[in-house]
Amino acid sequence: MRDRIVKALPFTAVTINDGFWAPRQKTNSEATIPHELAQCQKTGRIDNFAKAGGLMSGEFEGIFFNDSDVYKWVEAASYTLSTHPNPAWEAELDEVIAKIAASQQPDGYLNTYFTLVEPTKRWQNLGIMHELYCAGHLFEAAVAHYQATGKRNLLDVACRFADLIDSLFGPGKRDGLPGHEGIEIALVKLAGVTGEPRYTALAEYFVTRRGHSPSVFEKELENPDIPGGLDSYRHHFTRDGKFEGHYAQAHLPIQQQTECVGHAVRAMYLYSAAADIAAETGDTDILNALDILWKNVTEKRLYVTGGVGPSGHNEGFTNDYELPNFSAYAETCASIGLIFWAHRMFLLHGASRFVDVLETALYNGALSGISLDGTGFFYQNPLASYGDRFRHEWFGCACCPPNIARLLASIGQYIYAESDEGLWVNLYVGGTAEATVAQNVSVKLTQETDYPWAGDVALTIDPEVPVSFALNLRVPGWCEQFEARVNGRVYKPETNSDGYLSITREWHADDSVELRFDMPVARVYAHPLVRENVGRFALRRGPIVYCFEDVDNPDGVFQTLSLSGEVALETTFNDELLGGVTLIRGMGTVLDASEWDNNLYLPTKPKMRQLEVTAIPYYAWCNRGTSQMSVWVL
Amino acid sequence: MRDRIVKALPFTAVTINDGFWAPRQKTNSEATIPHELAQCQKTGRIDNFAKAGGLMSGEFEGIFFNDSDVYKWVEAASYTLSTHPNPAWEAELDEVIAKIAASQQPDGYLNTYFTLVEPTKRWQNLGIMHELYCAGHLFEAAVAHYQATGKRNLLDVACRFADLIDSLFGPGKRDGLPGHEGIEIALVKLAGVTGEPRYTALAEYFVTRRGHSPSVFEKELENPDIPGGLDSYRHHFTRDGKFEGHYAQAHLPIQQQTECVGHAVRAMYLYSAAADIAAETGDTDILNALDILWKNVTEKRLYVTGGVGPSGHNEGFTNDYELPNFSAYAETCASIGLIFWAHRMFLLHGASRFVDVLETALYNGALSGISLDGTGFFYQNPLASYGDRFRHEWFGCACCPPNIARLLASIGQYIYAESDEGLWVNLYVGGTAEATVAQNVSVKLTQETDYPWAGDVALTIDPEVPVSFALNLRVPGWCEQFEARVNGRVYKPETNSDGYLSITREWHADDSVELRFDMPVARVYAHPLVRENVGRFALRRGPIVYCFEDVDNPDGVFQTLSLSGEVALETTFNDELLGGVTLIRGMGTVLDASEWDNNLYLPTKPKMRQLEVTAIPYYAWCNRGTSQMSVWVL
Repeated sequence: MRDRIVKALPFTAVTINDGFWAPRQKTNSEATIPHELAQCQKTGRIDNFAKAGGLMSGEFEGIFFNDSDVYKWVEAASYTLSTHPNPAWEAELDEVIAKIAASQQPDGYLNTYFTLVEPTKRWQNLGIMHELYCAGHLFEAAVAHYQATGKRNLLDVACRFADLIDSLFGPGKRDGLPGHEGIEIALVKLAGVTGEPRYTALAEYFVTRRGHSPSVFEKELENPDIPGGLDSYRHHFTRDGKFEGHYAQAHLPIQQQTECVGHAVRAMYLYSAAADIAAETGDTDILNALDILWKNVTEKRLYVTGGVGPSGHNEGFTNDYELPNFSAYAETCASIGLIFWAHRMFLLHGASRFVDVLETALYNGALSGISLDGTGFFYQNPLASYGDRFRHEWFGCACCPPNIARLLASIGQYIYAESDEGLWVNLYVGGTAEATVAQNVSVKLTQETDYPWAGDVALTIDPEVPVSFALNLRVPGWCEQFEARVNGRVYKPETNSDGYLSITREWHADDSVELRFDMPVARVYAHPLVRENVGRFALRRGPIVYCFEDVDNPDGVFQTLSLSGEVALETTFNDELLGGVTLIRGMGTVLDASEWDNNLYLPTKPKMRQLEVTAIPYYAWCNRGTSQMSVWVL
Repeated sequence: MRDRIVKALPFTAVTINDGFWAPRQKTNSEATIPHELAQCQKTGRIDNFAKAGGLMSGEFEGIFFNDSDVYKWVEAASYTLSTHPNPAWEAELDEVIAKIAASQQPDGYLNTYFTLVEPTKRWQNLGIMHELYCAGHLFEAAVAHYQATGKRNLLDVACRFADLIDSLFGPGKRDGLPGHEGIEIALVKLAGVTGEPRYTALAEYFVTRRGHSPSVFEKELENPDIPGGLDSYRHHFTRDGKFEGHYAQAHLPIQQQTECVGHAVRAMYLYSAAADIAAETGDTDILNALDILWKNVTEKRLYVTGGVGPSGHNEGFTNDYELPNFSAYAETCASIGLIFWAHRMFLLHGASRFVDVLETALYNGALSGISLDGTGFFYQNPLASYGDRFRHEWFGCACCPPNIARLLASIGQYIYAESDEGLWVNLYVGGTAEATVAQNVSVKLTQETDYPWAGDVALTIDPEVPVSFALNLRVPGWCEQFEARVNGRVYKPETNSDGYLSITREWHADDSVELRFDMPVARVYAHPLVRENVGRFALRRGPIVYCFEDVDNPDGVFQTLSLSGEVALETTFNDELLGGVTLIRGMGTVLDASEWDNNLYLPTKPKMRQLEVTAIPYYAWCNRGTSQMSVWVL
């Protein structure tokens, strides 16, 4: 295996001041995070901690894993404090943290459902009841809060709980695994800020114990007095009443897995953790498995928007090339999980193709999960709609809203990476960053760009002293032609085998690099085995996938819309629409239903009529009321 | 309303000796009917009658409505005795009838489930437990047996039971309705052979009471001790626990119904019965409702194969233009029910467009339900398959196999019709018929044709004395051009407003009429709102809809097959394949998957490659093992 050569620049080292993400982070800070706190308060999610901590009386409210939503909100709010300092918010956050801390039991245990509802049944139904999953989100929140504020009030809570879990589970101790993964990446993060190797070892145990016989999940189900009861979670079971291994990626040891299966969010979190463990341990079997799983998802099971998991039945994966549009589940959380995994694959391999997938999911399948005003959410992200979808202000199972909030608040960490050899610029986002190259030289990077609406990027490289290193500029997979200049002089636009324009030279204060990525409208075709898209294509420009919505076009007309052949597609930027978007317009043809009268079948080819149509970025759909929508056209 | 001007020539007046249906009736007689008797015996269906009749000991076996399968088998075997006399079979049939008769209770009641399992709970769960539905199939069997053999042994049983039901239900008596329709058309048939007007009146009550408040079904569900129990049939209920009216067409009185809804077989049987009642009573509200329902199904909810009811969820109807191909339910019984309804609509209106639908269902969506060897069945008839479908020798719920058997055994009745004004030739099937025209003149008709493979038909008209009448020859809706000759002389090929070439003259012994219907291969397009077929067409030649199957073409190639543009389509008759079929061949193009390597999405239009493809009649698919299949191509 290749060593982990590359390290992400953390969100604390990056500022964003562009025209695309900076306004979104502002909305996230000013609208989404307050909205989500209000929802957590309104639904009893915060009170559950106060009740479990004896600060108020009352019963547990909501679903048994609701703690995790609060933790994700804490994580999002913490990142935001770093980019948008706000003393009032910091105090609000401390109040919530005080309630979380109060609910921690003397031995370190922390889960409001079990403390309030089934206190004698801890750790007896890990397969279904999400105790370890919730713990993982607590750990991630604590790490983010510590990184953003330097305070240890939540980190200490997390470490006490992690120590308890570590004292109970692992080799030579109790056998146990989370039904829903998540704690594994959290433990690696916790180890990262605390330096505690036991946390990494526990994460490794969780990753590598999974899928071995005897199944810890099946054993749990033998208990007739199992917490949560046996009847409510039948979708976790096979027909003969056993735990459904594929659903939770527990069908095989990670090293032997070759296909992305089961619940998509779980899968993404497991593969992300496995990448962390492979990076730590150098386990080549895990690394090889991850490469095979990556090929499986990107070559056969990925929506063009970066969505994964087509089926609502298991909230997850089905078969190769089975990517229906109208019924696409493509959970917001799953696209976010794909971003986590893709980022870690890049860090392992240093190759831009992983960032291509990250970028696609970020600008499309994940971003579509939140409305432009920051308070409307999609759980599912279909690629076509009959107009029966609308955005929700919250969900009973509210995993997605705080997940997209924490993603938006922390996207700084995906833009750059560093190593002894040089710097990587992975995403083109206006702002600044503080990196460190070999010999501990500090380098300030500045980016100016109108990306994703234009392919021009101006970079300033400002080392504290002249220093030699490779500046690795990602050439996006969607880009077929580009130009580069260094300090105004043309630089040969060559892409290396990792997909980067790598410029190695001695860099001086205020050196500049200019990039110009050609960004024409592309017609993207799916593999012929993707049944629903045969004869169809999607429009993509740069990283942005487009769609057609009723509100811009005659009712439902795009269901039969053809833009094939030599149809010219014009782009115009409209700064008043949908927060500022580049639109794509063209003269298309549609089947003329008028001549059909009352016929259902006719032996003559349907006539076509011409009309001008307008496409908008997919992420922006359903922001002007419910609407019919389609990504794929003829 | 228009009087019922037209009467079908019964199966007893028609013989079939052509190359298409005669071999199928032979297979039906020699393979299907013995096979189905064996299945009824093996699964305890016959024994249930013996047990209920005290002829043997033991418990009821199988599903509570299994009696109906035996009745449909008796009906099929009876028709067959008339076309294929066989003393051994007649004795076998009498044995089964003896067991049925033995199970009749002293008061006339007959249902082996209730007699053996819940004897004290008769008539308490008509919505779900199918007591009246089973009675209906008994009556239809009895009528067929009486017509075919002249024996009253089953007819008397049926009448005793019908008298009991009539004594219990109806105006001024108990309120009750069948959850699954069927008894209504059966009672009209029983009235037809017995002349008993009470049976028609009871049928009218069942047809017209349905859909009125208070709901008899909802009232039944108030009984906590309801037979069958409340939990097993939840799909009959709405979310708030009420009987699902639409599912059983009990949401509105028949006169107010405007859309075909719910379980498709039930719907077809109800509309058929309503047509019978409209013909008897002259109720114009019912007639108008039927016209509206007919428009709804034929203009918005009908597969090109004559299948109806796209959804497996309710075994029935969904929304306008919702006609998915892979998941099409299109139950064999529903196409058969559509044939029943279409036939009655023709008898009401005398218009050929009803026979067009009858013919389409007969040659395609119904016929596909049985294998060429007569012992393999489809319950569902999808229009595309990934190769995961196979034919079954029987089903737990075995409604379809004996239904297709009784259809095939009785298709003689759909070919001709008569009235005082003349004769109708609706289907082109070689054979003879004995009709009666005005002044009680007997006319022998003879047809010679290779239909459906060729459009040439030679008719001989042989009245016992010279007589004037209109010979109405159906010009099929699929036919755009035809020629006609009378006694060798060209006759003007004009179609009247009812869709017939009507030749009124004095007919003499051995007069001849020759018809030549042009039968080119047609590309049939679906309404633009049928989403799955946008950009696609189906091949049809004459009444036969075609499909592509793997066994004749490279694996799955037709999933992306294009035959559009000027592609020439050649037809050849192959008498060794699939029992003798006309094949359609052409040079198509398919997307070339080879160039895609491991890409899921590419920004270049997929290359096409040419290849010769072969289509077979849809009805003949899945007769050479499991196979991928598609009706609609690009």
